[in-house]
Amino acid sequence: MSTSKHSIKLLGLNGNLPLAEKIAAKIGAPLLETSTRHFSDGEIQVNIDETIRGDDIYVIQSLQNPINENIMETLIVIDALRRASAHEINVVLPYFAYSRADRKTHSREPITAKLLANMIEEAGADRVITLDLHADQVQGFFDIPVDHLQAIPILAKYFISKRFEEEDIVIISPDHSGTKLARRFAEYFNAPIAIIDQRGPHYDTEAVKDVIGDVKDKTAIVVDDMIDTGVRFAYASKSLLAAGAKEIYGAATHALLSNGASQLLNDAPIEEIAVTDSIELPKEQYPEKIKRLSVDYLFANAIEHIYDKKSIHSVFEEQQKL
Amino acid sequence: MSTSKHSIKLLGLNGNLPLAEKIAAKIGAPLLETSTRHFSDGEIQVNIDETIRGDDIYVIQSLQNPINENIMETLIVIDALRRASAHEINVVLPYFAYSRADRKTHSREPITAKLLANMIEEAGADRVITLDLHADQVQGFFDIPVDHLQAIPILAKYFISKRFEEEDIVIISPDHSGTKLARRFAEYFNAPIAIIDQRGPHYDTEAVKDVIGDVKDKTAIVVDDMIDTGVRFAYASKSLLAAGAKEIYGAATHALLSNGASQLLNDAPIEEIAVTDSIELPKEQYPEKIKRLSVDYLFANAIEHIYDKKSIHSVFEEQQKL
Amino acid sequence: MSTSKHSIKLLGLNGNLPLAEKIAAKIGAPLLETSTRHFSDGEIQVNIDETIRGDDIYVIQSLQNPINENIMETLIVIDALRRASAHEINVVLPYFAYSRADRKTHSREPITAKLLANMIEEAGADRVITLDLHADQVQGFFDIPVDHLQAIPILAKYFISKRFEEEDIVIISPDHSGTKLARRFAEYFNAPIAIIDQRGPHYDTEAVKDVIGDVKDKTAIVVDDMIDTGVRFAYASKSLLAAGAKEIYGAATHALLSNGASQLLNDAPIEEIAVTDSIELPKEQYPEKIKRLSVDYLFANAIEHIYDKKSIHSVFEEQQKL
Amino acid sequence: MSTSKHSIKLLGLNGNLPLAEKIAAKIGAPLLETSTRHFSDGEIQVNIDETIRGDDIYVIQSLQNPINENIMETLIVIDALRRASAHEINVVLPYFAYSRADRKTHSREPITAKLLANMIEEAGADRVITLDLHADQVQGFFDIPVDHLQAIPILAKYFISKRFEEEDIVIISPDHSGTKLARRFAEYFNAPIAIIDQRGPHYDTEAVKDVIGDVKDKTAIVVDDMIDTGVRFAYASKSLLAAGAKEIYGAATHALLSNGASQLLNDAPIEEIAVTDSIELPKEQYPEKIKRLSVDYLFANAIEHIYDKKSIHSVFEEQQKL
Amino acid sequence: MSTSKHSIKLLGLNGNLPLAEKIAAKIGAPLLETSTRHFSDGEIQVNIDETIRGDDIYVIQSLQNPINENIMETLIVIDALRRASAHEINVVLPYFAYSRADRKTHSREPITAKLLANMIEEAGADRVITLDLHADQVQGFFDIPVDHLQAIPILAKYFISKRFEEEDIVIISPDHSGTKLARRFAEYFNAPIAIIDQRGPHYDTEAVKDVIGDVKDKTAIVVDDMIDTGVRFAYASKSLLAAGAKEIYGAATHALLSNGASQLLNDAPIEEIAVTDSIELPKEQYPEKIKRLSVDYLFANAIEHIYDKKSIHSVFEEQQKL
Amino acid sequence: MSTSKHSIKLLGLNGNLPLAEKIAAKIGAPLLETSTRHFSDGEIQVNIDETIRGDDIYVIQSLQNPINENIMETLIVIDALRRASAHEINVVLPYFAYSRADRKTHSREPITAKLLANMIEEAGADRVITLDLHADQVQGFFDIPVDHLQAIPILAKYFISKRFEEEDIVIISPDHSGTKLARRFAEYFNAPIAIIDQRGPHYDTEAVKDVIGDVKDKTAIVVDDMIDTGVRFAYASKSLLAAGAKEIYGAATHALLSNGASQLLNDAPIEEIAVTDSIELPKEQYPEKIKRLSVDYLFANAIEHIYDKKSIHSVFEEQQKL
Repeated sequence: MSTSKHSIKLLGLNGNLPLAEKIAAKIGAPLLETSTRHFSDGEIQVNIDETIRGDDIYVIQSLQNPINENIMETLIVIDALRRASAHEINVVLPYFAYSRADRKTHSREPITAKLLANMIEEAGADRVITLDLHADQVQGFFDIPVDHLQAIPILAKYFISKRFEEEDIVIISPDHSGTKLARRFAEYFNAPIAIIDQRGPHYDTEAVKDVIGDVKDKTAIVVDDMIDTGVRFAYASKSLLAAGAKEIYGAATHALLSNGASQLLNDAPIEEIAVTDSIELPKEQYPEKIKRLSVDYLFANAIEHIYDKKSIHSVFEEQQKL
Repeated sequence: MSTSKHSIKLLGLNGNLPLAEKIAAKIGAPLLETSTRHFSDGEIQVNIDETIRGDDIYVIQSLQNPINENIMETLIVIDALRRASAHEINVVLPYFAYSRADRKTHSREPITAKLLANMIEEAGADRVITLDLHADQVQGFFDIPVDHLQAIPILAKYFISKRFEEEDIVIISPDHSGTKLARRFAEYFNAPIAIIDQRGPHYDTEAVKDVIGDVKDKTAIVVDDMIDTGVRFAYASKSLLAAGAKEIYGAATHALLSNGASQLLNDAPIEEIAVTDSIELPKEQYPEKIKRLSVDYLFANAIEHIYDKKSIHSVFEEQQKL
Repeated sequence: MSTSKHSIKLLGLNGNLPLAEKIAAKIGAPLLETSTRHFSDGEIQVNIDETIRGDDIYVIQSLQNPINENIMETLIVIDALRRASAHEINVVLPYFAYSRADRKTHSREPITAKLLANMIEEAGADRVITLDLHADQVQGFFDIPVDHLQAIPILAKYFISKRFEEEDIVIISPDHSGTKLARRFAEYFNAPIAIIDQRGPHYDTEAVKDVIGDVKDKTAIVVDDMIDTGVRFAYASKSLLAAGAKEIYGAATHALLSNGASQLLNDAPIEEIAVTDSIELPKEQYPEKIKRLSVDYLFANAIEHIYDKKSIHSVFEEQQKL
Repeated sequence: MSTSKHSIKLLGLNGNLPLAEKIAAKIGAPLLETSTRHFSDGEIQVNIDETIRGDDIYVIQSLQNPINENIMETLIVIDALRRASAHEINVVLPYFAYSRADRKTHSREPITAKLLANMIEEAGADRVITLDLHADQVQGFFDIPVDHLQAIPILAKYFISKRFEEEDIVIISPDHSGTKLARRFAEYFNAPIAIIDQRGPHYDTEAVKDVIGDVKDKTAIVVDDMIDTGVRFAYASKSLLAAGAKEIYGAATHALLSNGASQLLNDAPIEEIAVTDSIELPKEQYPEKIKRLSVDYLFANAIEHIYDKKSIHSVFEEQQKL
Repeated sequence: MSTSKHSIKLLGLNGNLPLAEKIAAKIGAPLLETSTRHFSDGEIQVNIDETIRGDDIYVIQSLQNPINENIMETLIVIDALRRASAHEINVVLPYFAYSRADRKTHSREPITAKLLANMIEEAGADRVITLDLHADQVQGFFDIPVDHLQAIPILAKYFISKRFEEEDIVIISPDHSGTKLARRFAEYFNAPIAIIDQRGPHYDTEAVKDVIGDVKDKTAIVVDDMIDTGVRFAYASKSLLAAGAKEIYGAATHALLSNGASQLLNDAPIEEIAVTDSIELPKEQYPEKIKRLSVDYLFANAIEHIYDKKSIHSVFEEQQKL
Repeated sequence: MSTSKHSIKLLGLNGNLPLAEKIAAKIGAPLLETSTRHFSDGEIQVNIDETIRGDDIYVIQSLQNPINENIMETLIVIDALRRASAHEINVVLPYFAYSRADRKTHSREPITAKLLANMIEEAGADRVITLDLHADQVQGFFDIPVDHLQAIPILAKYFISKRFEEEDIVIISPDHSGTKLARRFAEYFNAPIAIIDQRGPHYDTEAVKDVIGDVKDKTAIVVDDMIDTGVRFAYASKSLLAAGAKEIYGAATHALLSNGASQLLNDAPIEEIAVTDSIELPKEQYPEKIKRLSVDYLFANAIEHIYDKKSIHSVFEEQQKL
């Protein structure tokens, strides 16, 4: 791609190897020969089988479940790369774990997202490339450059392609902290928003919550940055149904689908949920109504721009045009 | 040779000296003899007239306008204290500047709130005590302990004391990102919330915006963490009036009131706005409808707990009971 | 305002909670009310239910399997303690993971033990207290104080109490790098040593290796710092049997017993193996011939000396007298 | 200028934009499209309108009055550049503020020049290029490379061009700490030096001080690194007049001219004072007798050498030949 | 468990053990049992024979010749103290080496004084206590507290006790950079100053230099911060003699007396030179005309004030009264 | 050698200038014009006479006796290079001092090897290239890349060239901690090993120690990483003789030969000892039976690979083929 003397090398780790392979295919460069073994005593061993001295490395790793294994694997690989004289260590994290632990809400809580950022920097990373952080402020947990990509245009375009009646659409935030994201998403449809008024600390999938805003006879698209246990999407859809919505869709960047989310979403009155492949689960964990859209081109494009020292801003602009 | 523990010393800087004096009075300890002079060439000179060797210092400084002067003054004083062998340097910041610059929203933006946090740590601070950060995540910009106080209970109690009809009240978020704060504030009144649906990047005080949620014939209290130019409160009140609200109040922790805010708020259909004294302006800049509530006891109480190594959690609990 | 010094607080994590409880009992102080939850999405959440502001904390955690979970749990707790204004964070690690990854033996290898040391320091630990590191040099991976305890006297005394004929004893190093440990252990018995001459990179439990030194008709005690898969102890015992040893015992500080070690050791011609409780496994994983000796008093004694600012040297001296 | 893959980009900040433009013109590269806005609440916002990813940036900023605004502006721009993946951030500071606060002269004083150096490094600068520091030792406040330029040859050549009788010239240090600079300046004229013997801490423009050394019937050139309030130059000239000097000139690198300096110098018995354009003031603040010499070529030349990885030593040598 | 505060412990290193012993005697505390051995292969080994856990340590070391041995000895001892859990490591340096290497005067020079400051901080020092740095700015090379003592009052009082006629005295700076020190010294005698006008880079003891200022028939006291090779004092005295001085004395804090200084000073027309015992040489290296004054009380007093958390300012004030 | 824009520059320091010159000759690049002067007051002054701005520097320095002088010289040069804008500072240390001080063996000991590693990193080194560290773990004392070369193949090949009868050879470890090295060395000869069973802390050249393993009528080659005082080799040879060895040879990478080693080795029953030129002593200190083999090609080859960003693994592979 460029004439730089530093070669580009891609390295895929175990968190989400299929996505790493798709990104590599888009870039047209193979993944480095690497093996990371998890031993019977619990330790991880890393073998990088090719020289990387003086190269620009892109380590691709989704910090998905098993999160702590994947974090340690990432840190160990960064350590190995630094000691092996890599020129630049770029850490590509389609899913950044612990991003909800980004502040103290009670006394004596950790801020694990900051801890994780510190660990990645201390281990030797030169840059982080990530996708739809739970809070934008997590960028500031790093002092190294963070290139923060967005899957919103990809998700929005999917629903645009469905050609709903524009005046029918309402975008739903499933709780109070997601209102801003809902408004941003709604701009693609020139649509109004509504909010599920979650009161009290605990979710209950059976409960029907107040809906603030008008959803009657509308096509409601619930949007969030992630689906973890699915409880928020489930109660949101029930509340919307009770409030008179015509049909309900969902959109979220990160599909964690932990702890029975699959069943819960299948049972919920949602037509379809669009997510990305930032997280890779066994096939049987995906309910049928989940539609996975790939972020491979987005990451491949960003990596190429970064390697070629071109503004990543044009990646965002290209997204708008797609 | 000696037997005593570390003495407590309070040091008030120029940002908001009246508040520093009120806090000192509540604690019952005088402010350190200190002078910080701003010379004709623009440089700041600091003189600390008493020994502070081995003492626990609490530097009280509001990072209000002139913000950059006040930041530098704070950093210079921290440097002087560190070099003079203070035992512990606690930086008490009733208002933390640049807290809206907490993430990159466009390419090539700084994250000035993180820069400021780094500067304060690098200069030698051991702890930060602050009030209602624009985003809770800013706590994570520090690796030193941050004790994060809240003025919400003080503001809520003021309106509770007005004894509005509870079923009449609705709490208003003037934009999408404040919905969570509005919900938290609403809990004190067991009230519903509504949102001003600000679309597009620029505010216009003359425009009437959509209101999401029911405000008809209600007592609407607009709540936000700060009032800067007053534009958001002004257009929110006009929108609420247009949507049928009975009467409109405001509440905000930090009253910056910059750039003609005073006039704008006076002209807006708001009955009264409760704010704190985290920021100190010349008297003539306060419109009559502004009601200032002091956070002196809150800070004094927190400082005493910290100095006595008692959990600050009890400060929060005591607030609930007040 | 207050007069007291820093309180001692013990905090037991999930790696080896029974040992933490025994240490706490010996010290006569309860473990802090703490819960660390591992969520379904893989994240760890920490709750410390008592104030620890200004206290001297001793976090007791064995970095045993699941190693990476336990490492992250430790780092997260350190982060929480630092942000909650602990006075001193002492990390007590009866077993330090990754201690064999202490150097590069091939190109592009990490030095994970150093990475781990860096992470612990960066998270905010003030001191590490640990036991029988695989290599003494790992102490130097830290710049904070490391108090390095030894289980050798405990293991030696157990065998001394068996009153073998002194002239019959020979101490065995199961490979070349353990010769120094064998010599140190042998001093307790005024005994000679012998070495299993392991050649080639891979172990094979069926193979009989050369034995360097005289073991004929002797009571051979194989000593090592840890038993991982048990292969080294198994082939050592077979080689010793072939070389004419009368009876064979084993001694090791850390009993990892991973991956079928239990069966392997049961089948091997070893009478008994003395280990410590630095690692806690489910009861069924311990072969009958394993004798577990507790290091609870050793750690309790060390913690008390450290907290009281007394030389830990006297802990070692007391051990010699026991 | 070079064939390097990293492009050179110049960025001018608000401290002294005219000088930045002159330097850019000399180099033949335009200043980056940048705007830094100072908001009504006191905050600074930075917009860099072109990509700088992978580029070598030269930020040109004079830390003149308003000093603290200009310092914060510089730090914020460095933060933005670092987060935007600049390859190398060179900070060009024709005037370095707080350089007189370079040591503690009383108890509990800060060393603000060191604080400032730490802040610049911490924010992310890779190199500093500056001019005539008040004390050479300030170079050592940095651990990054400092290229320290000198305006002495430019000032000396200006007076050489006046073709005074060489035997008539005497170079004057206006106080004790400037003697070394006076001697260095005097070498250009093969001249003797004399010293104004300032005793006691405060200056008084009306007083006539002792002059050490012979100035009778001579052309005295008072030399200093900066003119702040002008008091030192004013009393020096009166003392020299009283001591029989024939005519009096002045030379100084940095013309701060704060607080009525203009009037004071106009009234003093000085023929002319040569200064540089390291500081830019409104035209009306310059007394007529001030002659401003530009350091644009000096900085342009230095930047080109640094960017081309050529020794800056040749910049000094070229100066000698001019 | 325990109640006591941190004990004070003094530790004397090999640079200037006699001074350490005198300071210890004045404080009334013995030096710690310590041995530092310099092995035949050149390595230094340190043994600290008493516990220092939790103590406040004062390491007393003059960084005199052999400078690099003494620097390494100091750093190694700091490392040992940190790893042994000292509470506070105070480094008392009566003579700070490399203090003339405090700036770059030519291209590609190191700033060794800054390097040394960095090494001392990095090794783990908490505070530095030193005496008459060559440049005050070296204080700013540290970010830890520096308590900077002065021997000027001790030297001045010695000459005051000689009861010279006050109007006869003139204080001499042997070069341009010492003028400020001369002026400060002269204040004790209410005396004028004069300067040896050293031109060109090299000293020549035989040359007679210009003297700026009036010394005719006066008692001239040459003052400097150190005497290294003695060349400056020698040529100064000859120049003063040539200029008509009646008698010549010398005063300097640090008597390095390297490379034949002893002979040179004996031969020079100087009556007597007062120095301190900041440096300890074999007796035969002191010319008879050297008068050594002890700084033991000054350091003992400072250490006691620091340990007792009392302002060191009173140490300076007491000096003025002595 | 390459087409990179960063030039390669070699810089030889005083520790072992002959080896630096040999390496430079092999690479075909001259050593930089540099002078480091050791002044009469003990200070070191460095002059680098050519520009090195933007260059990749390889500083070649053996940290041999006088160790502390050589360490400081190295640190000072690194500081000068960093301040002079070198692109990459590689520190080539054929002998790394203090490598035996790599752990605490008694209370209150330093870990000087770690201190030294910290100093080198802090001064500004980007990479270390060294040879046969006493413990491999010292690599982990650094966080920068360490390229660790081995002289074992060079020493082994020398003895292979002697064409001893293979079945006659036994490789000897002179103490317990060297067993692993002996086994590694023995692989080149497909030979058994034996161990000198050193008991008790002190060596005694006259004593005859137990030998574990069979040496009767064999050609015994004692192998160690270094020869310091020679005592270990001397008593090992006597013990081997007593145990019936036919003839005795020695091999060691680093020949320190301190404190009468020369005489001791001459008197010992050793035929010949092969060492490398990692250390350079005056000729008269080498006993005749010492055979010095150069590591010049090994270092030259490694430097070229590093500069050309090629894997250093191939350097090891080439060694095997030689």
